[in-house]
Amino acid sequence: MQAELIFTGTELLIGEIVNTHAQYIGRELAALGIEITLHTTVGDQWDRMAGVLQGALERADLIIITGGLGPTTDDLTRDTVARVLGLPLVLDPPSLEHIRRFMARRGTVMPENMIRQAYFPAGAKILPNPVGTAPGALLEYRDRVLVLLPGPPDELRPMFARTVRPYLAGRARGGMVTRTRLLKVTGIGESAVQQLIGDLGGQGNPGIAYVAKPGEVHVRISAKAPGGALAEQMVADLLARVRERLSAYVFGMDDDVLEEVVGRLLTQRGLTVATAESCTGGLVASRLTSVPGSSGYFLGGVVAYHNRIKEGVLGVPAGVLKEYGAVSRETAVAMAEGIRRLTGADLGLSVTGIAGPDGGTPEKPVGLTYIALATPEGTSCREFHFPGRRHGVRQGAVNSGLNMIRLYLVDQQMAVD
Amino acid sequence: MQAELIFTGTELLIGEIVNTHAQYIGRELAALGIEITLHTTVGDQWDRMAGVLQGALERADLIIITGGLGPTTDDLTRDTVARVLGLPLVLDPPSLEHIRRFMARRGTVMPENMIRQAYFPAGAKILPNPVGTAPGALLEYRDRVLVLLPGPPDELRPMFARTVRPYLAGRARGGMVTRTRLLKVTGIGESAVQQLIGDLGGQGNPGIAYVAKPGEVHVRISAKAPGGALAEQMVADLLARVRERLSAYVFGMDDDVLEEVVGRLLTQRGLTVATAESCTGGLVASRLTSVPGSSGYFLGGVVAYHNRIKEGVLGVPAGVLKEYGAVSRETAVAMAEGIRRLTGADLGLSVTGIAGPDGGTPEKPVGLTYIALATPEGTSCREFHFPGRRHGVRQGAVNSGLNMIRLYLVDQQMAVD
Repeated sequence: MQAELIFTGTELLIGEIVNTHAQYIGRELAALGIEITLHTTVGDQWDRMAGVLQGALERADLIIITGGLGPTTDDLTRDTVARVLGLPLVLDPPSLEHIRRFMARRGTVMPENMIRQAYFPAGAKILPNPVGTAPGALLEYRDRVLVLLPGPPDELRPMFARTVRPYLAGRARGGMVTRTRLLKVTGIGESAVQQLIGDLGGQGNPGIAYVAKPGEVHVRISAKAPGGALAEQMVADLLARVRERLSAYVFGMDDDVLEEVVGRLLTQRGLTVATAESCTGGLVASRLTSVPGSSGYFLGGVVAYHNRIKEGVLGVPAGVLKEYGAVSRETAVAMAEGIRRLTGADLGLSVTGIAGPDGGTPEKPVGLTYIALATPEGTSCREFHFPGRRHGVRQGAVNSGLNMIRLYLVDQQMAVD
Repeated sequence: MQAELIFTGTELLIGEIVNTHAQYIGRELAALGIEITLHTTVGDQWDRMAGVLQGALERADLIIITGGLGPTTDDLTRDTVARVLGLPLVLDPPSLEHIRRFMARRGTVMPENMIRQAYFPAGAKILPNPVGTAPGALLEYRDRVLVLLPGPPDELRPMFARTVRPYLAGRARGGMVTRTRLLKVTGIGESAVQQLIGDLGGQGNPGIAYVAKPGEVHVRISAKAPGGALAEQMVADLLARVRERLSAYVFGMDDDVLEEVVGRLLTQRGLTVATAESCTGGLVASRLTSVPGSSGYFLGGVVAYHNRIKEGVLGVPAGVLKEYGAVSRETAVAMAEGIRRLTGADLGLSVTGIAGPDGGTPEKPVGLTYIALATPEGTSCREFHFPGRRHGVRQGAVNSGLNMIRLYLVDQQMAVD
């Protein structure tokens, strides 16, 4: 089953609001194994909407249209669908009754223009709207299915979940279904990832695709098959091979977030951590503490921006700062050991680097960063060169720092297992 | 001029990520007075992309395509545009040199597949990418204009702002133009803002619109007129009246960012600042240090998550923690004074609160936050109740903390003037 989504509303075209329906319905259909081939956003103009709908009817099995079901004159979806399909608009008395009661509960008489909301193309199944006045509609037209949903997200989502999802789950059975998993890696660039695994698959079935994020790459593995079990098996087989090649870089799957993965590992091992940050200026600490319950393993941190703080609070020897500079392996190690000593944490992570745009030199260019991890077994330090501007360098450093904690904890776990 | 936007990427179709380009480019074109007629999102499949592009070429004067300029085999935009327009792909040597240098700065040899990023349809103007490897391109083809932009938002936005916006502003001259200014306020909610200024305008021309952000409200004032000068005058007149009513809350205009405004004021006054954070976990420090040159006024900070750090590093008396609790006016004051003493900064800002989801009580509910500012003249503390969940509470606290610094510096300045 191939689906096209049509979003109506001039406010979407001119960027007044973000199109969150695209993500919500996209995810829902993908989870049902329905292939989505196109999203189109069109303004509140009947001829343009009609053109978009005609095109979709030629190509897709399923067409979902959002918005334009309200009471005002720029709400054109019902009229446009009826005209394009050549069907009359028919009053649905239960819908009219629903709207009257809805307004009465709010202590209001139904405004005359709301009657429009109770008219639908002949033959439509009405989708109740428990949250607002505008019902939705579902039309089986020849071998096509059209679904009309209201624009407000808090009306669209319950309607989709209660009536559209079960209907589509029934129809999607028997057809081709798609299954997808996301493998998340860090510490390696997008093109390097492809060089490692590109021979395992590309646009075929099963297929591999890549999405680069700041400091992370997401590898999407998907497969299409006549049944869910078969598609899942195809994904699992390819996933196993991809995972093997990328194992050193994989930090999670699907909805995993790096700081949550680190938090789970710290909790499992019963260890605490503290941070000493220079160029990241508190970002590592703020990522770690964005996780609910992080007070169980995160003790605190020092943002040592000025050398006075590196010396006075973290105890970095003045001689180290003078001889090697603030951005150096030696300073990073002293910062990590300093925060570990200061807080009594099991692990001390430090970051010092040149975030730019100023401050770079030929020997120490913008992007150069040292990250050190002090542990009960000793202190390790790695040198990084992060690309991009200030924001990119800082994000790269945060992810790499979190990943160093993760790798240490995974190694510890393996040593125990 | 009529424009269509084409967003490429299967990750958008299946809802893996939100399409933020739709909003950004939509707003930008609307501000230039360019009519946007259609948004289309299409997957990484060359035949479907070609079909969408052909349709757009039949209808629109301006076509902007995002994504698909990366190095991997699912990056198809360059190839598709060249095939549909019947143009050869030609190597652009400066782009190749840019990519080589970019990779060399990262200490890496350019992977072979990155050469693809230096090929463009013959006749294209290359749009430099200072942030990443993939350059963009602009093609004048018969009476159409095609613009190819990279997918990552932090690459697309500076490229659009530096090269595409000025180019389009030149071409859009002559028709109706729209001018927009953004007034940014903090310390007041969206509906309270509307109650103060709602009578001055709404959806008309000139118009007022509201966008709520965590801890901020942006008031958009826009006007449409036959000429830029007239539209600007209409905006300026309304802006002056809005500004007068909101003056106590306004922290900036247009691209202003609160931490930059604070940084400018600190630099002007020659003062330094340090932070002591509990529930915000380093977010205040990371916002302050996101500004280039912040090392001139930000000395450092302590993330005092565990009470041991509040006591041992910041010197909060154990009796205060025991009697009043970690989330209290007394602890906030002691933290602010402690970080000021520890770092020798002129100003010490502290934040302690309950971010949730756990840890709230009837007396101290989730969202309760104390923010204190220690200055040479003494220490002040304010109690806040931030709405929302963990993320919202933390963002609200960061903005309010930065705003307390701003208000202190503005008062200081007025006392001097």
